Order: sequence, then structure tokens, then C-alpha cells
Amino acid sequence: MSDTTDDDNYVCEQQTETMRFCLKCRRVLYRGRSKYQEILVVDTYDYGKALLLDGLFQTTEKDEAFYHELLVHVPMFAHPSPKNVLIIGGGDGGSLREALKHRVHVDLVEIDEEVVEISKKYFFFPDSGNFDLIIMDGFEYLKSIRKKYDVVIVDGSDPIGPAEVLFKDEFVKLIKKVLEEKGIVVLQSGSPLLREEYCYFFKIYKTLKKYFKLVKPYFYFVPTYPTGMWSYIAASDTIDPEVPARIPDESYNLKVYTEKLHRSVFALPSFIEKKLKEEQ
Amino acid sequence: MSDTTDDDNYVCEQQTETMRFCLKCRRVLYRGRSKYQEILVVDTYDYGKALLLDGLFQTTEKDEAFYHELLVHVPMFAHPSPKNVLIIGGGDGGSLREALKHRVHVDLVEIDEEVVEISKKYFFFPDSGNFDLIIMDGFEYLKSIRKKYDVVIVDGSDPIGPAEVLFKDEFVKLIKKVLEEKGIVVLQSGSPLLREEYCYFFKIYKTLKKYFKLVKPYFYFVPTYPTGMWSYIAASDTIDPEVPARIPDESYNLKVYTEKLHRSVFALPSFIEKKLKEEQ
Repeated sequence: MSDTTDDDNYVCEQQTETMRFCLKCRRVLYRGRSKYQEILVVDTYDYGKALLLDGLFQTTEKDEAFYHELLVHVPMFAHPSPKNVLIIGGGDGGSLREALKHRVHVDLVEIDEEVVEISKKYFFFPDSGNFDLIIMDGFEYLKSIRKKYDVVIVDGSDPIGPAEVLFKDEFVKLIKKVLEEKGIVVLQSGSPLLREEYCYFFKIYKTLKKYFKLVKPYFYFVPTYPTGMWSYIAASDTIDPEVPARIPDESYNLKVYTEKLHRSVFALPSFIEKKLKEEQ
Repeated sequence: MSDTTDDDNYVCEQQTETMRFCLKCRRVLYRGRSKYQEILVVDTYDYGKALLLDGLFQTTEKDEAFYHELLVHVPMFAHPSPKNVLIIGGGDGGSLREALKHRVHVDLVEIDEEVVEISKKYFFFPDSGNFDLIIMDGFEYLKSIRKKYDVVIVDGSDPIGPAEVLFKDEFVKLIKKVLEEKGIVVLQSGSPLLREEYCYFFKIYKTLKKYFKLVKPYFYFVPTYPTGMWSYIAASDTIDPEVPARIPDESYNLKVYTEKLHRSVFALPSFIEKKLKEEQ
């Protein structure tokens, strides 16, 4: 999928079979293959350093704050007093960095150790802090533990192919099992604007609705992800994800998240509001 | 700039010198050159029919509602009783179609008659209705008239090169001259995330602040525009653009706009909030 054209140094993501996004690079910083995937790190003119896995843009210096701050701080600030946080995936370290600002303990379960090593060198993975790194398949981890968490953050790859598990009942049941009764879970849920075969937003929503009383999708910009309109779904039995229970002080050093933004991102465009109502 | 590669039928927009967005086409529906620009109409797999001017995506069937509904309905619903509306640019007809839903009279001033003809055939330009089409340069029109408008909508091309006039003092003074005292103006103001030479959001904001008491930027998704994060700035001396004075009924048949969304899009990401405060 990844295609660095030598004559003009563009790296292109094939976002769908018929849609492509390309960034010109100053240079390739790393190229390799782990047990699980192709890893590419490039330095682009428009978005700074970028990580691609199997040819898909995962994170870039310039727009990572949009993704990580919205994924992490919405559930974290909705929770009145989080202490234990689980991140599934998130090998680039951005979600971990944001979660640790809340002075919590984080368990991060990432399947690919090489992504973590690369991210320590080129991206945001902290060298140390109040967290445990567990190199393991997230699904297996959930099955194996008895520990409970206040906040669970699913920062996985797109659930196409092997990661389809993310919108299966069994996965959501396991999440529920490890979540405190007064806990909250968030999943990145892709773009709702992609053609059906690439779109898993509505499927994840439907599955979560079976198991949680409060299920709230929200949207915000991630320019280097397909369509730029990215979705997240937060779910809980007791916490309303729309309402911040706490607000950030300056120590959080936030680039994107504000209390007003938190309340705003839950406003859905009319056609999605209608579609979600029809599905109930 | 426009570059239909024959061997795989992709049409690519060079969004910056170092960033490209490409859509595969079923077929080319129209290709020509007007007095002002190259006009290309293609049928794409991901976004349906698309209009490109000088190689830049202007509108697509699938995402035009994001752009046109946010540009038009935010100022229109913020105004308690609009009667006369001026649209500068907007040759594809989408803004006109949305404005007419408010049962107002619209004057639409478009420089390129051929864009209107193409849009009547392939896009949204209405054949008839309560509007006057004036084929003329918008700047010249503003200088020549004594009429006043309740709402002015600037639906222009990106103000790079010749359209730089859009963020010059003289243009804003002319807008003010044709605006009723209790009127409101809106401009599309590009993406705030683009590199400086492509970014005019902050320049337009600064100019508007000199002439209007209430100047409020807002953001929403337009997937086929560079970065997908598109900005608009609404300005008025008497109307707060953030607050809807009226709300839509079903006759408006809206795909994106809702009252809640109207109030939400004015929540700015932290780094833009800070940058705008610094500039004051």
C-alpha cells in the first residue's frame, strides 16, 4: 500500500480503492517490517514527521493533538475522579502522554513492540512515568485479567480485517467486564463519511448500544485521516460523556481541547442524527 | 494544476506544493476553458460529481451540503428577519439554493457565466426563483450599487493571487457600505491549518476586526477541501453570529445544519483561540 515514488518523493495513502492522499517527504527516517506490519517513518513538508503502518497514516506531528486530545480528554474529563486507565493499542504513545496529564496510572496494551520502540525514538512514547507497558494482544489481555479500570481507551487501528473484533459483541462484553461500574469507555470509530465497506462507525455504535445506557458519538477534525472527519464513541452506564466533570488547568498544556469544545463536539450533523435514530 | 492521469483515471488536486488529493473518476463529463479559468466536471467514485476550477475541487455532490449549509444558514438563521441577500461568487448555485429556502430575494454576482451554465446542467444552480443573476466582478458590483442587504455571503474562490482583494480593507469597507445597519456578513476563509503562504484565515479575521464589533470565526468539515477543516467568519455590528434568532422547520430539508450545530461550531480549538487573542 505504501508507495514512496522516488522521482518526486511523495508518500501516498490509498484511503479507499479510489481515493488517495499524498504528502511529499524531505526524507525517509525509518523503514522496516515488524512481525505484524510494515512500519514507515517519514519527514513531510506539510505535517512534519509521520508514522505509517501498512501504508496508512497513523499519526503526524502536526495533527496528532487533534486525534489524541479528543480521544483521551473527552472521557477523562467526563469522569469525576479517574485513577486507573487502560489504553488498548496506542503504540505511538500520544494517548498515553495525554492520559498521564490526569495523574492516573495507565496500563497500555500494545501488540507490536517495534511500534513502541520506533515511537520512543521519533514520536511521543514516554521513556518513563506512572504506566505499565504490556506487549500483548488487547483481546487476550481483556480475557486474562481481573483488574478493573475507571477509563478504557481503545486506540486501535481501523477495525477492517483482523481488527473487526472491535465491533463484535464479545469485545464489548470484555470491555464491560474490566470497567468499573462508574467507568467510561471510548473507541475511535473511523469516519462516518466513507463508503460502506470502509465505514464501521454505525456498526460500533449499534454494538455499544446493546451494552451501555449512555452511548454518545462525537466528531472532530483529523486532517491526515480519510475525509478528515473523525469519529469517537464514548459509552457508560453512569457518566454522561457530553458533560465535563472537571476542567483542565494550564499544566495540561492543551493544543486543541477546551471545555467548550468538549460540549460542542457532540452536536451531530442532521443526516447522522437521523440515521442513528432510525437504527434504534 | 489539474492532472487526469489517463492510465488510472485519477484527478488530482495539488493542495499545496507538497500535498495532493486524488479521486478516481468514472468519467469526465465536461472539460473546457472559460475567459477566466479551466473548468472540469468529473464523476468520481467517492464523492459523486465534482466541479474543479483551475484544478481545485470547488464542490462535490457528496460533501457540498457541509460547505453550503454552514456558509449560508449560520448567518441566515442568526438574522431575525432577512429579506434581501447578496451572494458574491457562488456560481455553482449551492449557496443560492440554500439561501432561497429562507424566502428571501437574492442577488447573486458571479464573474464567470460559464460556471453558471455548467452548474445549471450538472450541479445546483436553480433555473428560476426569487433571485437575480448578475454576471460581473463582485468588487465592481459593490462599488457600483446603492442597494442595501440584510445578509452578504462571500462565496468566493480562495483569495490567493487575484482574489487577494477579499482580505483588503477596501473590500471590507465596500461590504459594510452595502450592509444594512442590522445586517450580517459571512466569508469563507479557508483552512487555518495550511502553511502560511496558503493560509488567509488569520488575515481575513484581522481585517474584519477593524470594521465590525462582532467578528466570530467558525469551523466545520469539508472533506474535499485541503485539510478538511474549513473556516468561515461571520461579522456584524448588532447580530451575534453564534446565536440563532430563528430555527429551521422541515421545509428546509437540511442534511447538516441543526440549531445545536450552529451553536457548537463556534467552539475553537485551544491553539486558535490563543492565536486570535494574541492578535488583538
